[in-house]
Amino acid sequence: MNRNDVTEMIIEAKVKKGLRWEDVAARLGLSKEWVTAGCLGQMTFSPEQAVLLGELFELPDEAVKWLQVVPYKGSLPTTVPTDPLIYRFHELVSVYGTTFKALIHEEFGDGIMSAIDFRMDLTREADPKGDRVHITMSGKFLPYRTY
Amino acid sequence: MNRNDVTEMIIEAKVKKGLRWEDVAARLGLSKEWVTAGCLGQMTFSPEQAVLLGELFELPDEAVKWLQVVPYKGSLPTTVPTDPLIYRFHELVSVYGTTFKALIHEEFGDGIMSAIDFRMDLTREADPKGDRVHITMSGKFLPYRTY
Amino acid sequence: MNRNDVTEMIIEAKVKKGLRWEDVAARLGLSKEWVTAGCLGQMTFSPEQAVLLGELFELPDEAVKWLQVVPYKGSLPTTVPTDPLIYRFHELVSVYGTTFKALIHEEFGDGIMSAIDFRMDLTREADPKGDRVHITMSGKFLPYRTY
Amino acid sequence: MNRNDVTEMIIEAKVKKGLRWEDVAARLGLSKEWVTAGCLGQMTFSPEQAVLLGELFELPDEAVKWLQVVPYKGSLPTTVPTDPLIYRFHELVSVYGTTFKALIHEEFGDGIMSAIDFRMDLTREADPKGDRVHITMSGKFLPYRTY
Amino acid sequence: MNRNDVTEMIIEAKVKKGLRWEDVAARLGLSKEWVTAGCLGQMTFSPEQAVLLGELFELPDEAVKWLQVVPYKGSLPTTVPTDPLIYRFHELVSVYGTTFKALIHEEFGDGIMSAIDFRMDLTREADPKGDRVHITMSGKFLPYRTY
Amino acid sequence: MNRNDVTEMIIEAKVKKGLRWEDVAARLGLSKEWVTAGCLGQMTFSPEQAVLLGELFELPDEAVKWLQVVPYKGSLPTTVPTDPLIYRFHELVSVYGTTFKALIHEEFGDGIMSAIDFRMDLTREADPKGDRVHITMSGKFLPYRTY
Amino acid sequence: MNRNDVTEMIIEAKVKKGLRWEDVAARLGLSKEWVTAGCLGQMTFSPEQAVLLGELFELPDEAVKWLQVVPYKGSLPTTVPTDPLIYRFHELVSVYGTTFKALIHEEFGDGIMSAIDFRMDLTREADPKGDRVHITMSGKFLPYRTY
Amino acid sequence: MNRNDVTEMIIEAKVKKGLRWEDVAARLGLSKEWVTAGCLGQMTFSPEQAVLLGELFELPDEAVKWLQVVPYKGSLPTTVPTDPLIYRFHELVSVYGTTFKALIHEEFGDGIMSAIDFRMDLTREADPKGDRVHITMSGKFLPYRTY
Amino acid sequence: MNRNDVTEMIIEAKVKKGLRWEDVAARLGLSKEWVTAGCLGQMTFSPEQAVLLGELFELPDEAVKWLQVVPYKGSLPTTVPTDPLIYRFHELVSVYGTTFKALIHEEFGDGIMSAIDFRMDLTREADPKGDRVHITMSGKFLPYRTY
Amino acid sequence: MNRNDVTEMIIEAKVKKGLRWEDVAARLGLSKEWVTAGCLGQMTFSPEQAVLLGELFELPDEAVKWLQVVPYKGSLPTTVPTDPLIYRFHELVSVYGTTFKALIHEEFGDGIMSAIDFRMDLTREADPKGDRVHITMSGKFLPYRTY
Repeated sequence: MNRNDVTEMIIEAKVKKGLRWEDVAARLGLSKEWVTAGCLGQMTFSPEQAVLLGELFELPDEAVKWLQVVPYKGSLPTTVPTDPLIYRFHELVSVYGTTFKALIHEEFGDGIMSAIDFRMDLTREADPKGDRVHITMSGKFLPYRTY
Repeated sequence: MNRNDVTEMIIEAKVKKGLRWEDVAARLGLSKEWVTAGCLGQMTFSPEQAVLLGELFELPDEAVKWLQVVPYKGSLPTTVPTDPLIYRFHELVSVYGTTFKALIHEEFGDGIMSAIDFRMDLTREADPKGDRVHITMSGKFLPYRTY
Repeated sequence: MNRNDVTEMIIEAKVKKGLRWEDVAARLGLSKEWVTAGCLGQMTFSPEQAVLLGELFELPDEAVKWLQVVPYKGSLPTTVPTDPLIYRFHELVSVYGTTFKALIHEEFGDGIMSAIDFRMDLTREADPKGDRVHITMSGKFLPYRTY
Repeated sequence: MNRNDVTEMIIEAKVKKGLRWEDVAARLGLSKEWVTAGCLGQMTFSPEQAVLLGELFELPDEAVKWLQVVPYKGSLPTTVPTDPLIYRFHELVSVYGTTFKALIHEEFGDGIMSAIDFRMDLTREADPKGDRVHITMSGKFLPYRTY
Repeated sequence: MNRNDVTEMIIEAKVKKGLRWEDVAARLGLSKEWVTAGCLGQMTFSPEQAVLLGELFELPDEAVKWLQVVPYKGSLPTTVPTDPLIYRFHELVSVYGTTFKALIHEEFGDGIMSAIDFRMDLTREADPKGDRVHITMSGKFLPYRTY
Repeated sequence: MNRNDVTEMIIEAKVKKGLRWEDVAARLGLSKEWVTAGCLGQMTFSPEQAVLLGELFELPDEAVKWLQVVPYKGSLPTTVPTDPLIYRFHELVSVYGTTFKALIHEEFGDGIMSAIDFRMDLTREADPKGDRVHITMSGKFLPYRTY
Repeated sequence: MNRNDVTEMIIEAKVKKGLRWEDVAARLGLSKEWVTAGCLGQMTFSPEQAVLLGELFELPDEAVKWLQVVPYKGSLPTTVPTDPLIYRFHELVSVYGTTFKALIHEEFGDGIMSAIDFRMDLTREADPKGDRVHITMSGKFLPYRTY
Repeated sequence: MNRNDVTEMIIEAKVKKGLRWEDVAARLGLSKEWVTAGCLGQMTFSPEQAVLLGELFELPDEAVKWLQVVPYKGSLPTTVPTDPLIYRFHELVSVYGTTFKALIHEEFGDGIMSAIDFRMDLTREADPKGDRVHITMSGKFLPYRTY
Repeated sequence: MNRNDVTEMIIEAKVKKGLRWEDVAARLGLSKEWVTAGCLGQMTFSPEQAVLLGELFELPDEAVKWLQVVPYKGSLPTTVPTDPLIYRFHELVSVYGTTFKALIHEEFGDGIMSAIDFRMDLTREADPKGDRVHITMSGKFLPYRTY
Repeated sequence: MNRNDVTEMIIEAKVKKGLRWEDVAARLGLSKEWVTAGCLGQMTFSPEQAVLLGELFELPDEAVKWLQVVPYKGSLPTTVPTDPLIYRFHELVSVYGTTFKALIHEEFGDGIMSAIDFRMDLTREADPKGDRVHITMSGKFLPYRTY
């Protein structure tokens, strides 16, 4: 058994039980974004969180241990994602990549937006012309320092 | 002359004149995100916008015409960006890609978040532990339809 | 079990039972194009559609549930398809890609043809010099907007 | 000088003169799809057609000769196109590739749709919910033969 | 079971029984080139041919059905083949590719040699300095047409 | 100046002068296949041959020297050729690669068909259903030896 | 002119003048590691630093401005470096990558070592069996946080 | 069974038993860096070391033998690692690669830092602004020699 | 069962029995280089050789048959080998590739060194500064011929 | 000017003057293998050697300085070389890679053959069946050490 097996167990259990990610997150008292990423094998759970997930998805003990091990991250099977929904995010990076760079450097100087000290929130934005996906991201700015 | 040449002219002029993207955007009365993307060769300008940019960056007439031609989009030289700032966005897609997919489908059903009917806003978020980059994205949800 | 397993079950059942895609589509009262794509793991079925397919292909209950889960899309094993029939479509994009772009922008301005709000129809076109494959595609034009 | 240089000359002249592809095609009495592809370096012109284009775009004599030489085809700079409009066509092949294959084989048996004995037509389809891009493709079916 | 499994069954049976491709082809009354390609998963057999192969290789009924399904073609595990014999053919395309193109266009104009309406014959050519592999290929010329 | 420059000079001169490869070959008293490959930068000419080509294409002296230097071979800009004519040959290797291997090993044992001690001949094959491209290849079989 | 041009100017001037990186760094009063990276186009200089470098390398004014613009980072022409010295570092990441991961997570929990809030020092380590390259790296640990 | 299977056995046993790499290393009396790399399939153990590991992880006899066989090295599933922690090291090579090269050649002349006659040490560096990962590397300099 | 399975059987048996390649080769009365390559799935054995290997490694009858079938050659899992020992050979080709080409053409004219009519010998070269790996290669020169 | 420019200057001068690598090497009193590699941009020359080469090839002073700068090594334009002569060496690594590994480890234990402390010699081996290319390589064995 490895962490990928645990991810597959969780997805299978979710399909069989008809659970929603939002409900899984509520059970842990955390955001749906972080909990979903964790269940999909991208984050590390504390022992208490892992036990709760084990109960919810009826996982064996070994799986509960694996949830506490830092996973090898990266959730996509190919560098350029073939899935249309995920590709649109890839496209945003491709089209707006140099714009992100230009504007962040203009505001903050040389450095990056952290993808580690990072949080995000994804909600529905009602719109008469068709509802919209609304995403808020917040990442700490980390400056390059001279030495 | 092609659109890439015009992008290079704009970047050179910006370095020489010490302009800021925010000021360029203000001159056009539009967001700094869209205007920067356009100046970096990713969007198409109207004749009036193109003329204004031509004055601002002292571009030749032919360049002003090129700004009104729809460009071949994609701003990055390699599939996996080597620049650390842009890579962090690539990493977010890699780590959170399946999470975006799971949560959007849970909320909206099968479909995508449009990267075309899309807007975004990038600001500084003050934080005593170190300021943060704050990004808001809004893209129309487009459902797959059966036929 | 995952969605790929369900796709393989459907293909195996189709070979064993000698079914035709056209008949499968008729059973659901939908186009053969959309139904085939769905059976090959690219679209999401409603509960009623999934139950009908489950009966037709004698699928287990879990498989019927998987048909209602949005799949990770992309039907090809390699970026450049090795199969000659599919490659011809890849070649059309390679040869006519810039032509599609030039003509759609000339007619509609900057934007794209949606691959989501999209339908297509594939028929036989009788021709004395040899019958032809006739394909009609219709995708909503989505304009880029300034903001 | 080579054919790529001629393509760039044509695009530059078109931008400077503000010509439309449709008008260029009308001048030759042919479809806008084939003429545009040819001007973008994908098709071969007859001597008469080349002379007409030379006049229209004010090309030097050597360029007129190059238009009559069969070009090395393929109009895109990367295997997976970064341009959003062209990518949508790539995505259609990725998502519907196995569907094209299944339905054409079901109707015609083993073989391919020719991308050489091929024609297409791209038009605007009026729609109250937003106009659509309408594309009709017709390619001769070529059967594999046993020998 | 899928077509790849059937190909492996055939290869295993061939090794166990010590059959020769030439004899397999003779049993079907067809060329060894086409029959070998079909047994290696690249061509589609008629019901009668499939039954004969089923008897010869002692295949189960389901395998016999799979032989009649059009396969996803492409016989090599990597784009550049590592096997030295197959690589030499890849090298011929690499070294002589532009020569094939130049000479076929000189003789026939713009178009291609069909790889579908195609036959070939591979024989031993006796030579006192060492026997040679002699290959004859014949593919229909398909012209590009203006429209 | 390098060999690629010489290849471009030859192609430009050929377009300007309207020469045919067949005539170029006749001038050297050799096959059109080998001479075309050489002019396209894939073979090495003797001093006498180089001088003849220099006269024919009006090349400078330095170019005549370069024609006698062994070139870095490989005539295609990408691993998978985008040009439809050349791709068909790539496809033949992809589809028939394992067939070539199986049949040559069946006839000759372990070894390869040489792509060096190799000759080929490309002709028009008249056919009432449409003329065909006829190619004959002959390569020495080279056996692997035990040691 | 762009930043790459400035990097090439600096390297050419360094070769012509016979300067050493250590001396360049001393002139700026900073480490040789950071200054070399900056001169090679990977870091951003302050106006004072840029002026000093401009004097040292006799750069034109525009180049001095470019040194103050945040560069598009990434110093290598290929993903897997062909240069043997640089490849050894790539090999260390390949062989020890999972070891870095295991040990940092064991000591710190889930998170990363920053490559931005980072410094390093490269010195000669005398050794009777042959001197050694001694490298010290120090990067801030950044923990993933739950949210 | 192969060496990869043994690596998976070790990782599974470590998760189940809750062992720490540091303790495993202490049992062998060696550094945690080398022992972890070895357990992750990158180094070769002596018979005594292998027996100790076999006891610690309760490995079968065949696994203990495999630990003494030189493994096929390389610990990462993709050329560019998707895991954020490991990617940061890849980024250091990308950003500082030419700097490593410049400074080592300046100090030592032409040659490389050995990745074989190499040792490293990874520790926690306390820092009031947040603890840091401290890594010391030492590799023998190997000069290219003329001959 | 296929040839890869046989290779794995041989390697497993070798580890279990503690055999040396040199002894395996001696049993067949052939060089250790050719026999090792054959056991690793790169060469074809005669019936007598296959039977001897079957006895030595206690292989099943079917495996003995597979050893006599020409394998699909290529022993490495990635194009650029990650294993440091094998990479050094890849590096030699990368660094010295154009040197091999220049010197062989200078001595022999246009052609290649055969990798088929090839033998090699790998021995220990005692050296007081550290023993050396000594490799002798001999491949027949094959000239390109004009035709 | 950069090192690549110097390499091109040397090759052009060699073609114009009709020099042989062997003679160039003799002028420096070194092996033809090392000197050719150096002239092709892979090795670093001492000031005396660089001056001699400058005289021989009539290089400008700046080029003579560049010959003394350690180059960015790697002589091939693509990872898999398209040139048939160089490809044969690539093929040897592909086919014999695991054999090199197995035999060197059997003789020396875990470690590598150095590609830095390395020398080679390439000669003609007369053979009545056709002369052969004879290559002798000698690289120091470098053992991995435990620490």
